[in-house]
Order: sequence, then structure tokens, then C-alpha cells
Amino acid sequence: MTSTAPDSRSADRIPTPTVPAPDVLRCASMELVVTDLARSRDFYADVLGLVVTEEDDDAVYLRTFEEFIHHNLVLRRGPVAAAAAFSYRVRSPQDLDRAVAFYEELGCRVERRAAGSTRGIGDSVRVEDPLGFPYEFFHEVEHVERLAWRYDLYTPGALVRLDHFNQVTPDVPRAVAYMEDLGFRVTEDIEDADGTVYAAWMRRKPTVHDTAMTGGDGPRMHHIAFATHEKHNIIAICDKLGALRMSDRIERGPGRHGVSNAFYLYLRDPDGHRIEIYTQDYYTGDPDNPLVTWDVHDNQRRDWWGNPVVPSWYTEASLVLDLDGNPKPVVARTDSSEMEVTIGADGFSYTRPSDDELPSWKQGEYKLGHQL
Amino acid sequence: MTSTAPDSRSADRIPTPTVPAPDVLRCASMELVVTDLARSRDFYADVLGLVVTEEDDDAVYLRTFEEFIHHNLVLRRGPVAAAAAFSYRVRSPQDLDRAVAFYEELGCRVERRAAGSTRGIGDSVRVEDPLGFPYEFFHEVEHVERLAWRYDLYTPGALVRLDHFNQVTPDVPRAVAYMEDLGFRVTEDIEDADGTVYAAWMRRKPTVHDTAMTGGDGPRMHHIAFATHEKHNIIAICDKLGALRMSDRIERGPGRHGVSNAFYLYLRDPDGHRIEIYTQDYYTGDPDNPLVTWDVHDNQRRDWWGNPVVPSWYTEASLVLDLDGNPKPVVARTDSSEMEVTIGADGFSYTRPSDDELPSWKQGEYKLGHQL
Amino acid sequence: MTSTAPDSRSADRIPTPTVPAPDVLRCASMELVVTDLARSRDFYADVLGLVVTEEDDDAVYLRTFEEFIHHNLVLRRGPVAAAAAFSYRVRSPQDLDRAVAFYEELGCRVERRAAGSTRGIGDSVRVEDPLGFPYEFFHEVEHVERLAWRYDLYTPGALVRLDHFNQVTPDVPRAVAYMEDLGFRVTEDIEDADGTVYAAWMRRKPTVHDTAMTGGDGPRMHHIAFATHEKHNIIAICDKLGALRMSDRIERGPGRHGVSNAFYLYLRDPDGHRIEIYTQDYYTGDPDNPLVTWDVHDNQRRDWWGNPVVPSWYTEASLVLDLDGNPKPVVARTDSSEMEVTIGADGFSYTRPSDDELPSWKQGEYKLGHQL
Amino acid sequence: MTSTAPDSRSADRIPTPTVPAPDVLRCASMELVVTDLARSRDFYADVLGLVVTEEDDDAVYLRTFEEFIHHNLVLRRGPVAAAAAFSYRVRSPQDLDRAVAFYEELGCRVERRAAGSTRGIGDSVRVEDPLGFPYEFFHEVEHVERLAWRYDLYTPGALVRLDHFNQVTPDVPRAVAYMEDLGFRVTEDIEDADGTVYAAWMRRKPTVHDTAMTGGDGPRMHHIAFATHEKHNIIAICDKLGALRMSDRIERGPGRHGVSNAFYLYLRDPDGHRIEIYTQDYYTGDPDNPLVTWDVHDNQRRDWWGNPVVPSWYTEASLVLDLDGNPKPVVARTDSSEMEVTIGADGFSYTRPSDDELPSWKQGEYKLGHQL
Repeated sequence: MTSTAPDSRSADRIPTPTVPAPDVLRCASMELVVTDLARSRDFYADVLGLVVTEEDDDAVYLRTFEEFIHHNLVLRRGPVAAAAAFSYRVRSPQDLDRAVAFYEELGCRVERRAAGSTRGIGDSVRVEDPLGFPYEFFHEVEHVERLAWRYDLYTPGALVRLDHFNQVTPDVPRAVAYMEDLGFRVTEDIEDADGTVYAAWMRRKPTVHDTAMTGGDGPRMHHIAFATHEKHNIIAICDKLGALRMSDRIERGPGRHGVSNAFYLYLRDPDGHRIEIYTQDYYTGDPDNPLVTWDVHDNQRRDWWGNPVVPSWYTEASLVLDLDGNPKPVVARTDSSEMEVTIGADGFSYTRPSDDELPSWKQGEYKLGHQL
Repeated sequence: MTSTAPDSRSADRIPTPTVPAPDVLRCASMELVVTDLARSRDFYADVLGLVVTEEDDDAVYLRTFEEFIHHNLVLRRGPVAAAAAFSYRVRSPQDLDRAVAFYEELGCRVERRAAGSTRGIGDSVRVEDPLGFPYEFFHEVEHVERLAWRYDLYTPGALVRLDHFNQVTPDVPRAVAYMEDLGFRVTEDIEDADGTVYAAWMRRKPTVHDTAMTGGDGPRMHHIAFATHEKHNIIAICDKLGALRMSDRIERGPGRHGVSNAFYLYLRDPDGHRIEIYTQDYYTGDPDNPLVTWDVHDNQRRDWWGNPVVPSWYTEASLVLDLDGNPKPVVARTDSSEMEVTIGADGFSYTRPSDDELPSWKQGEYKLGHQL
Repeated sequence: MTSTAPDSRSADRIPTPTVPAPDVLRCASMELVVTDLARSRDFYADVLGLVVTEEDDDAVYLRTFEEFIHHNLVLRRGPVAAAAAFSYRVRSPQDLDRAVAFYEELGCRVERRAAGSTRGIGDSVRVEDPLGFPYEFFHEVEHVERLAWRYDLYTPGALVRLDHFNQVTPDVPRAVAYMEDLGFRVTEDIEDADGTVYAAWMRRKPTVHDTAMTGGDGPRMHHIAFATHEKHNIIAICDKLGALRMSDRIERGPGRHGVSNAFYLYLRDPDGHRIEIYTQDYYTGDPDNPLVTWDVHDNQRRDWWGNPVVPSWYTEASLVLDLDGNPKPVVARTDSSEMEVTIGADGFSYTRPSDDELPSWKQGEYKLGHQL
Repeated sequence: MTSTAPDSRSADRIPTPTVPAPDVLRCASMELVVTDLARSRDFYADVLGLVVTEEDDDAVYLRTFEEFIHHNLVLRRGPVAAAAAFSYRVRSPQDLDRAVAFYEELGCRVERRAAGSTRGIGDSVRVEDPLGFPYEFFHEVEHVERLAWRYDLYTPGALVRLDHFNQVTPDVPRAVAYMEDLGFRVTEDIEDADGTVYAAWMRRKPTVHDTAMTGGDGPRMHHIAFATHEKHNIIAICDKLGALRMSDRIERGPGRHGVSNAFYLYLRDPDGHRIEIYTQDYYTGDPDNPLVTWDVHDNQRRDWWGNPVVPSWYTEASLVLDLDGNPKPVVARTDSSEMEVTIGADGFSYTRPSDDELPSWKQGEYKLGHQL
């Protein structure tokens, strides 16, 4: 990895609004449409142990152990599995007005929603952003008990914070430039020698990210990530899924990321929505926090141990909804595909840049994956 | 614990400056005067495993594994063990001017220091603050390798971040009001039913604190805290001290704090400076982050397991230096002493508010400590 | 620590039987009389998470997660809190006959009990052993599900094995000689320069111990110990007790033992019975496994970090019952007391043998404890 | 998994000797021939942190942190990478005579070697056993410092015990019957509905195994396993390999085994010898310890999380040497191949027995592996 700034301006860039961006505090919640609410509730509440703050016939509101706002996840019953809102908390009620102005200047569809449209949340603004994602902004929120000290309720794999979102979009530099206008900073990215950007991680709170942009056919939701305290908590989740004969919910990992340096696990929920469990990235809050750029051919970038990435992780993602609740059409990526350039016949990967080839046990889908 | 706001205004309050406060990013470094530089270097670098960025005959500059700025700790040879600077990083060079104006309006002694006065640091501002503490502010700093990924260098007890300072001062509400003017927010505190405030935790970065004010004879430096990733890292430090027959460096813990919910350990360095090792507090970055107030009689506030606090932890602390390098005189606390009200003949502690008395094994210094 | 053999023969020794000893596999279960069965059940099953195999109005049978025999702990309702049986499993039914012959030759009271006298257990032999302890031997036992793989049932502090017993007896060498006749081997002990033996650890299974003899007024039951997989499991138990406002159940620790090298925690149950939670001692199964002898004045022998041992840990223990269910009279120790020689006015402790004195924070009960 | 006894008698069985078997204490050491001694020393001592007890120009003797005998691993320079000895410690010198008689009756080549033939080891017996493996038996051994308490020397991935061997042999039931004659007990195995046995785990010390028999072309050495205390120690080894850009040493894992319930990692040394890092199996020392039998089609048997087993793990293994130091010819397995029946076109795997198919991310080499 190196530490140079990417050129995050693409030809087809989204103009920078003249008005100030809303002051985003952090990623705060995601609304997922699920096709079998009871089954999804079982997965998130009984299997993963998220805490149900409130629920009704159509939705379940869940939070993590260290959260004091009403929820970090909304499961809403619907006909098509999709992500309905990437919800960010902003610093003040005035930031909602700023969000309206910001997105209106961008020509986006913008809706104000009155307090209570989502339980526990005050007035909010929903937009279809320039990339096609349903973003939500809110400030007012119902406070609930922060369960941090409630060790009588902890499970071995207790999820303590919502950490980040991850979005799939065809043109990563275009997405990054827009997100920088929205006040986000890039902490890490994946590039190649030709300057193609395959993914970028961006933050508001001082962690590696509040959201990441992953290059691919989009707009789609790649995953939502919850944090645990320690690595054994993540292992405990795997062990429990094994005991429940639900190990096929485990898609990838556990492992150590190169990017972010965090320990990770990827699960797929009953609708196929991807969940990451994540722990121990680093502080990024200084304005000159060094950008870390990874070579797309470095096979330790996605897994520090060089373990292969399962092809589904590259290719599958959730639809996102427009403000009417209809799935957004997916636009194909035209830039090089990260999976193809690292797995396919024309690609190569390395552990050490000078090496010719990986041993047989590390080739995994690198050689085979493109056949899938 | 409850969540109500303390009255942090005391009669003898420090006036709020009319000029804006500097934008403090985070506690960044402490400068400690040590009487035997080689012995202190051995303790911090060889025993605790902090990384030596640079050193000369008079000083050693050390950093943590996830840090990218030049240092988090300066050990400087001197005749009297003391804390010479509590050093904060500010957002921009202009914040140094703001710091000068802020403290000049408060009538404090203020000095600008040219780049290089401390190795690795650009221009800085040092002040004797209204409480008598030597505060430093800087922005420009030399970047060094962030060793987060260098697991070949990690030890079992690797220290990954500077987390916070802790200061002893006689009048906690007075200190808190001043720190709020400086832009800090209170996250937790310890009070009694009469409104006496015994300690308060305050943050800039979104953790429980960048510094805490502990009621006692001051100005003195109570401790500086470094973070590890997991709890076993802290245990490994204890185990290593045992193996080196240096277990008498362990003053208190390991244990779980009530305040902050973090797992902790307190060590004493060769000069008696107190070091905390700390892991796993919670996110506090929202503007309405709930304040947690603890009853001084709750014996789980300082140790969640109710284990006694050794009296030295309450009574001993390091001198601080003025800008000429002379120890600041210590002013006695006149408010009630936390140790006395919880340990002394007139005090009491409880695990459950309704209980009359703690079992024999929990009384420890609560009953005996005041005899020391 | 050194590795020399103690002289484990005292003047008043118990004669070695001419018949072979029963082949003891391991400590397998303890029967505790408790005064409030519901409250004790809550402590062991709901708080500590032991698994209830079976229960009735008078008794609860509990086991650990990796156990396949019916139980490791019996809670039996009774008027006086006491230990009713230290139960060992033997290799074959014939070993019960050997136990009868062995103890009859020693002149002990011996009773055969028919299968079902204790639920889940086949024929058994109970004796009042030469030291006054109620020992039980059994072979036949009901098999139950080994829950090792049932991670859906694990709690953060899951207890996975019964590890050992610990007994208080006045004359440790006398006890050791008898236990060696019974086939146990000493793995570690605590002595002083005069040859006084303060405690000894003895094993059948290849861990540091199946039982230990602790010098003091006896016969009394010092503690029963359950194992966890990792150190964080022990911390989780403390955290949960804090959350339940039951932190006064924590008597000592957590900490690292010098003896055994294990990580430990001592709790007191609702009747005051002492429970240890224990993890990570070492393999001792070779016949020439080196004996480790600790100096009674080494303050890292009981806690590797030199943290003080609370006086109650030395002085308090549970009564044991004779075969009629009556408490055995307690005989005073006449040899030196470990607590006195390390804490009292005439004693001293050291971290490094050459040092004069411990720092203030390490003196704790060493100086004060004898005043209690 | 179920708990029924396998029929471990094959048609071509090895006769049971009329003389008693030697009393094997435990697997104690392996001798590996390596082609580049310096490079292998670097891998085992500097990367994995095994402790060098002694070395000369031709061999390096290494041990784990909790070991008190001279070594657990011998690296010997030689022209062809192979396993030269699977070395077991026996209870007494007389057990060497028993070993001679046992193997002579079996018609095996048997050699007595005088003390010092291998450094640190007294008189020994080496045999080419009926399966073609070079087994060694010894009792006398040089004691060295048990480093269990030397936390000043521990690394984040400290290896504390030799846990087991794993051998590849064509006819598993034939191997099991012979090993039972040698006094080993089966703890777990993998079978199919037709009674084909694919692998079996056998123990002397009361863990899941001292060695396992894995069905395949043999005699070959599948792996040697070292234990750590906790799971994070295994993760630390992976992280360090990543930092050293040696992640291609990681072949499989980390993961949770179904069989043994242990947490595992497989590495390949510079010669391709396979090393397992292993932690937290369970006690098996009772004579009626329940046998656990796994269905070969259960995709959680090898990895509890259902993660695919890389094909190299099934197909690659080290040659073993005869007593002249020449590689033993490898005989092909004629029974079904575990890899084929679970991966190949004719095979299937399941997470839940009733399910038709695994999701795409779990098929991995199950569908593709047979193409390699």
C-alpha cells in the first residue's frame, strides 16, 4: 500500500453544489425491505442478538448494545427484498434544510417526511441521490437505554455499534467526488497502475468509514456492518450459526481485511442482504489522516491472509428502492471489474510483487472464479 | 447511574472568553520529565513496547502502533519527575492564533514556540492554563509510518492509541466550565446527593474522554492512558510484568470501569508517573450524547466489579511544571474527598442502594484505607 | 519458584494401605448443601449458566458444557450450608471394591450406596477419609448430551469443565502423603525455608490438579473450580455480576495465579461456598513432570501480578459433612499460617527476593490484613 | 453427528500381538527432514516463535512454551523433504522393551538407538510400523526450563504445546485396529452410510487425539499440530504472516473444526510440510468417552462454518522415511476418497440433511475442486 491521493474527478462528474452540505454525524441506520418479516426478525434478533426496540406488524426496529438512539436497523415487510434507506444522522435540525437545498441544487428528487414516518425518528429528508441511492437524513430521534453496561443481556457475539454501509456503484471516482462534496473524506482506496479506482472508503465519524463505494453494477447495497468488541465475538457468531445448522449464512470470512485493518465476517440474511461483522479499525479523525491506496493486484488488500474472495461477494448485492418504493434500475459498470482483473485469465494477483504465481491453495477462485 | 445534567457552574468560575476557542482534535501527546532517562526508556519501550520514533541524549519520543504523527509521549530527562505538557492537536494552523487569543483573554501566561522546539512538532503554543496545567497546542507535525499493519512488530500487549489524559484539580465544576468553554463536552461524572462533583470526563474526539478532571489537590497529573485492542492485551502486560518480577509496577486492576465501561489497568512508571492501559469504551460523538452521572457511594462506579480502589490511586499524582520548568504549587481540595466519603468512617458504599453493608471481602480499603 | 521434591512425610502420618488404591480418573462432581435451593439454583444456573440436567424439590443436578456425565454439581437443600461429597470417578466398577478395601484398612467409615442414591450415578462408595472429608467414588453414570458444539446455548462466560476441588486441612504434608497413597501426584506446592508446607496441588488427570490441600483449620471445603475456554469468559462473568448488581459475589480476582499459571476468579455463592473460575493451566501427565515449589514469601505465588489476597480468602471456608450429614468438627492448624507469615507483623513478602519492601499500593492486606 | 461405534476391523487386518503394548504417554516430537535448514529455522523459530533448545550444523531442536522435555520438533537437513520420525514418549524404560517385542511380533523392522542418537533423548526404539510409518518410542529425556511463566518471551501467537500428529494411510479401519492394539482409543471419526471410514482420531493423553488417520495415498505425514491458549493467538499468526508478506504460507483456515470442536489453522512450511495451529478441544480421558461419528457428506464436519476445504489439503502430504532414511513408497487408497465424495460430480454435501443444495458461496471447491 502507498499513501498518495487519487484523482477522484471523473469526466462525468456531479457538480459541486454552491450551498453548504448538511453536517453529517454518522451513518445511523438502514431500512431493509424483507420478504418474510418473521424469518428476518428471527435472524437479526434471535440469531445475531440485535435488540428489538419496537415492532409492529409491518416493521421491526433494532439497535446495537451501545446505541442510545431508537434504532440502527429497520426491517420492513415488502414484496421485493431491497434497501429502502441509507440513513444518516445530522448535527442539527437546520441540517435538514441544508440537505434539502443541497440535493435540490443537484436536481435530485427530495422529500421531507414528518416525524413518525419512521418510528422513533423526527422530521427527516429522503432523497434519491445523484448515484441513485435512497439517502435519508434526520436529527431528532427518540433516546432509548444505552445497554453498554447490561452485560446480563450480552451474547457471545454481541453487536455493539452500527459501523458502516457499503454501496455498489459503477463509477467510483464520480461517487467519491460527490461524497466529498457532501463532506466525506476518503481514508483508503483500491486502484491499479492505470488509475482505475475499484473501491473507496469514506468517513464522517473518525473511523475508516461511514460508507464505502465499491465498483460494480449499481446502484446496489453491498452490505451493512455492525461492530463487536473483540475478534472472538465474531468467531462466536460463526460457531452459533454452525450449531443452528445455519452455516450457509456465512458467505466470506472470518478474516482480516487489508483495507481498514479490521477483522471481518460476511453473512447473508434470509433475503440475501449482506451483513458484515467488523471489529478494530483505526482512528482517522485528523484532517491530514494519511490515505492508504492498495494495488488491485495485491491479494492481501481484501484479505490480509490472502484467502480467496468468494465470487458471489463481488457479484451479488441488494437492489435499492426509489422514493416510491420501486427498485432502481441497475446500470452496468464499464470500468474494469475488480473480480476480473484479479481472478480472470487476464489478471494476476500477488502476495509479494516480485512473485510469479500463488501456491495452489491460494489460487482458489483467482483462477476458477471467472468460470462461475 | 442516571442521566441528568450536572450544574457545572461554581461560584469562583473562570470567565468565558469572548473569542472563539481553538478547534481541538484530540489529546495527542504528553511530555513527562523523568529522572533516569535510560530506566524510563526501558519501561516504556522495552517493557510496554511503545515504538521509539526518535531519541537523543535528553529525550525519547515514542508512539503507539496506530499513530501516524511523530509521537504520543516525550520522555525528557530532568531533575524532578513531573508532567511538562498536556499536548493537544488542533485542526489548523489558525487554531494556534485562536489558542493565543483565548488564553490571553483569560490572563494566562502564553508562549509561542517555534517549530522544532519539540522534535517532530511544528509551531506550537504553550500556556499555563487557568487551572495551572501546562497545556500545549500544535497542528503541524511530522508524519511517520502508521504501524497498524505491522503485526510482525506487535507484542502481546501492544499499545495502539493514546486515549486520554487525567488531571487532578481541587474544584471540578470550575474546571469543567472552563473546559466546556474550550469546546469539550462532559460524557460522565461522579456526584453525590448534595451536588458535589468528584470527577468529570470530557471529550473532543468521540470517545468517553480526551481528558478527565479528578477532584483532589492540584494541579497534578493523575495519569495518561494508552489503548489496546482487546482485554487479553492488558492481561498480557500484567503477565509480562510478573515474568520480569516487576509486578510492583501494577498499582490497580485490571478491572472494568463503571465510568466509561472500559477495561483498565493502572501502572506506575519508574518515577511513579501513573499510566493507564484502557480498552473498549463507547462512541460519544452525537451532540445529545447522554450524560452518565454516577453516585459517589456506588462502589461499582470506579470498578464495575466492586473491587476496592487502592488508596494511593486517590492520593498520589505527578507534579506539573510551569512554562519555566518549575513545579506548580499544589492547592488543596476543599470539597469533600472521594476517598474519604467512600472509605472513611463517615462514608459508606453500596453495590445495591438498599444494602446496609458490603461483605468482608469487599470492604478492603473502604474501611481500612483511611488509616494508611 | 524452584523444582525440588518436598518431604511430604510428617511425623503423624497416615499408614499406607497394603491393598491397591482405586484407579481415580478425575474429580467429577461436588455435592453442596444449600440453605435456599431456589436462590442457589438461580446463582448457578441463571447467573453462571451451568446446565440443569435434572432437578426435583430437594436437589438440582448441574453440568458444564463439555461434560457427558450426568452432573458436575449437586445442590441439595439442607439446614446448614456445607460440602456433602467430593466425588471422584473411578476407572471401573472394580475400583469401588478397591476403594472399600483401601479405606477399611485405614479404619475409615465406609458406606456403599446403591445406584440411584444420587440421581444419574450408579453404585457408589462414600467414606469419611482420614482427614475427615466426605469422599465419594463412582463409576457407573448416566450419559447425557455433551453440549460442546451447542454454541447456540453458550453464554459469554460459559463454564466448560469441572476442573478441581480445594480442601482446607491443618497438616498439609500428612494430607499429601495420604493422597499420594491414593494415587495422586504433587505438581506444585508452597513452602518456606524451614520446610513448612502451606499448600500442595495434586492431580490424577494431567492438569495441575484434581484437588489441592490448603493449610488451615479443617476439614473444610475451600472451593470448587470450573474451567472456561478463554480469559475473556471470566471477565464476562464479572461484568455480568456487575450488571446484576451482584458484584459482591466477587471475592478475589480476576488475576493470574503464580501456582498453576492459570487465570482465575473467586466467587462466593449465596451460602458463601467459594467457586473458582479457572482457565489455562498446563499438561502434567508425564511421570517425571517437574514439581514447582514456591516460597511462601514470594508475593507472586498466589497472584502473579502481586495483587493482595483478601484475608477472607485465607480464613473462610465451608464446613464438610460426615456420612450422617452432620458437620465435621474443625481442627485448628498448628503450623504457621500462610496469611500470618506473609501479611502479619512478623511476616514479609517480596516481588524480588532482594527488595526490602513493597510499594504502598502492593501492601494492601499484607500490612493491614491481620487487623481484621 | 452421532455416537455409535464404528466397525474398525477390516478384512486385511494386522494381527493383535500377544505381548502387551508399550504404555504410550503422548505424542512428543516429530523429526522433519528439511532441504534448507536456515530457511526452515527462520520459519519455525523466528516466524512461529518456537523456542530453540539446541542446534548444530545439521539439526535444530525446538520446543513449545509449556514443554519441559528437550524438544517437540527436530528439523534435520536432508536431500528430500520428509517426516523421519513420529516420536512418542512412553511411561518407563521398560516400555522400550515392550515396544521391541510388540513390533517384532508384528514382523516389523525394529532398531534400538543409543542415548544421544537424537540430542536430548535417551535410549530409543525406532520401527517401521505395519502401516509403513517411522515410529519412535523413548522415555529418558533431558529436562529443560518450562517457559510457561516466561511471559516476557511470549509472542502474540505463542505455541504452548505439541498437540497431535496426523497420518495419511489408505485403509483407515486397518490402521485404527492396529492403533487400538497399541493402546489408542478412537474419539471421533468420519464415515458414510455404507460404512466406509474416511478418517479417525485416536488418543492416549485425554485430548481428542495424539494422532489421526486420514484416508488417502500413504504412508504420508499429513500434519503436525501445535496448541495455543486462545483463538486470538491463531489470528495473530495469520496477521504476522500477512505483515511479512508470507500469507501464502496459510493453506486453510482459520476456522472451527466440527471434528474435535477445536479452532484451527493450517500452514505450509518452506518445504511444504503442513503445520496445524490448534486450540480448545475437550477432555476425553474417561474409558466410556462417547465416540462422535460424522457423516462424510456433512459439510460442517471439517469446518463447522461450512467453509470449503481447499483441495490441496486433501491431496498433498509429506513423504515419510524408512529407517535407512529413504522415502517409503506410497500406496494408493482404494476406498472412496473423501474429497471426491464431497466435491466431485457424484458427491454432495449438506448443511442440513434435508437440503438440496448449498448456496453459491458455499459450493467453492465442492463443485470445482475436482477440476483442479
